Amino acid sequence: MSPITRRRMIAMSLASLAVVQGVTATFAQSDTPLASWQKGPTRDRIIAFVEASLKEGEPGYIAPADRIAVFDNDGTLWCEKPVYFQLFFALDRIRAMAPDHPEWKDTEPYKSILAGDLEGFAKQGEHAVLEVVMQSHAGMTVDQFQVIVADWISTAKHPELKRRYDTLIYKPMLELLSYLRMNGYQTWIVSGGGIEFMRAFAERTYGVPPQQVVGSSIVTEFNVVEGVPELIRLPKLDFIDDQAGKPVGINKFIGKRPVFAAGNSDGDLQMLQWTTMADGPRFGMIVHHTDAEREYAYDRESPVGRLDKALDEAPAAGWLVVDMKDDWATIFPK
Amino acid sequence: MSPITRRRMIAMSLASLAVVQGVTATFAQSDTPLASWQKGPTRDRIIAFVEASLKEGEPGYIAPADRIAVFDNDGTLWCEKPVYFQLFFALDRIRAMAPDHPEWKDTEPYKSILAGDLEGFAKQGEHAVLEVVMQSHAGMTVDQFQVIVADWISTAKHPELKRRYDTLIYKPMLELLSYLRMNGYQTWIVSGGGIEFMRAFAERTYGVPPQQVVGSSIVTEFNVVEGVPELIRLPKLDFIDDQAGKPVGINKFIGKRPVFAAGNSDGDLQMLQWTTMADGPRFGMIVHHTDAEREYAYDRESPVGRLDKALDEAPAAGWLVVDMKDDWATIFPK
Repeated sequence: MSPITRRRMIAMSLASLAVVQGVTATFAQSDTPLASWQKGPTRDRIIAFVEASLKEGEPGYIAPADRIAVFDNDGTLWCEKPVYFQLFFALDRIRAMAPDHPEWKDTEPYKSILAGDLEGFAKQGEHAVLEVVMQSHAGMTVDQFQVIVADWISTAKHPELKRRYDTLIYKPMLELLSYLRMNGYQTWIVSGGGIEFMRAFAERTYGVPPQQVVGSSIVTEFNVVEGVPELIRLPKLDFIDDQAGKPVGINKFIGKRPVFAAGNSDGDLQMLQWTTMADGPRFGMIVHHTDAEREYAYDRESPVGRLDKALDEAPAAGWLVVDMKDDWATIFPK
Repeated sequence: MSPITRRRMIAMSLASLAVVQGVTATFAQSDTPLASWQKGPTRDRIIAFVEASLKEGEPGYIAPADRIAVFDNDGTLWCEKPVYFQLFFALDRIRAMAPDHPEWKDTEPYKSILAGDLEGFAKQGEHAVLEVVMQSHAGMTVDQFQVIVADWISTAKHPELKRRYDTLIYKPMLELLSYLRMNGYQTWIVSGGGIEFMRAFAERTYGVPPQQVVGSSIVTEFNVVEGVPELIRLPKLDFIDDQAGKPVGINKFIGKRPVFAAGNSDGDLQMLQWTTMADGPRFGMIVHHTDAEREYAYDRESPVGRLDKALDEAPAAGWLVVDMKDDWATIFPK
């Protein structure tokens, strides 16, 4: 297949996926703001901040150009249990690629993955995870990667909750994104997850366009192949957008300090500090996973999404701690 | 001075600069689109592309979300002669810092700079330039750097043209930016220049907000100092947004392929290729510096802003080559 034919097929495939999947962003629509939030002080505080930010001349006023809100993704906009969904993608991808790699049957860490022994895979440590991530995320063009991820998210299902990953998003947070945008806020995702992974579904899932997604990245390389320019994804880390990397990523991509930040783990601590510890009206929010029945309950001891230091700092910093169990009437969209 | 007092002073200083300098962006306003362009095929071709892009159902139509236009800065939006203006900034900054560095009087490359011997400085090669750039661009917070650049651009003057640098911008290009925005295009700067250098004036000069500026960068580091979060600029290169780096920067920051690109040198070749060599309506433009009387005339042999390969590729690629002398009725704003 010529590069041009391949590009055409990718474009057509992306277009048809967009039609099929362009449903989830509409979850966020509603007439009442924050309808899935319980009435009470948590919801009131969010609404009070946003309403004050619109009143020119008042102390809570925020100029439209400064209305920048940043959201973590894993555990803040969608579920992150039992592991980050991007790892499920990587594992599914290894399984899908296996027929072209017969040698994997006898080579770790692939052997464990293909045998369904995820504990055995996990025991091999960070190096094995990095190898699997690179194997599944690099070696294709950026356009091809978009198709691979969009394809996966339109079919793959969560092993425990038995639903598509892009439906395991938090309805109250979709409403919050929508409510902020209706009031002139730019909503950005600032996540430790892969920037191009998230871009493949962020617009239709959250209403956040690609240029407002900040995340971790690998290196890409520009080449002109048979007269066709291509960007190839290389198996080399470029930037880790987590912890102290989040303010760095915010400054690099947005170039100004946000006024609103929402996170759920210690990986968001520095983003919350950078956003809120400055002059003027500012809002910090932590989603606290307290609902073992409807989702998962975890904080200080959790290896994924550990929330410890940020929870300690929240009262003095004035960050709103959202109690998922008590504050959210609904968790996932129907 | 405590970090909080310092931050307050920086905020106040930035606010007052914004008031004084908030004049240049208004240069771009006019009722007739592209009023400073000569009537004729060049101007017609731009207008025909943009008008066709608004007509839903027609072959030239571009969906609003895809209306992304990228512009080089040096030589495309503002003058780049006799050298990139950012180098003038670096040299002015070295002179301003000299009283705190008595040792520079006897140390190269500072000795030559302080003696006004720029030829002597230039002879010391790339390493000396890099040292001067790092010395002048690193070692402060990102907020402090914004103030330093904004201060400089509101006072410094071009040595030959005797005007403030932010008035040495091309009126026809300001009108083009404006015209594209009026028609629903996002206008982005994608430049080899420093991202935070340009962000200090891009909004008031070009109407391009910080989050739509892509450029070269140095590493920043997040620290909390005496309870105050700060991002410090380190003397270490992060990313060079030039040549093959431009499509990489576009993909990293914008996450989708633009439909319109304007440049003026071989540094823009790959950006033009990436933008235009794909399906659908696309526009590539090269500003050709042909006006020695009103600005500068240069192309294939110029060490700064060399235009050679891109000029050769333009006809086959269908890129519009704008002849500054013949196509622009006015060059700089009054």
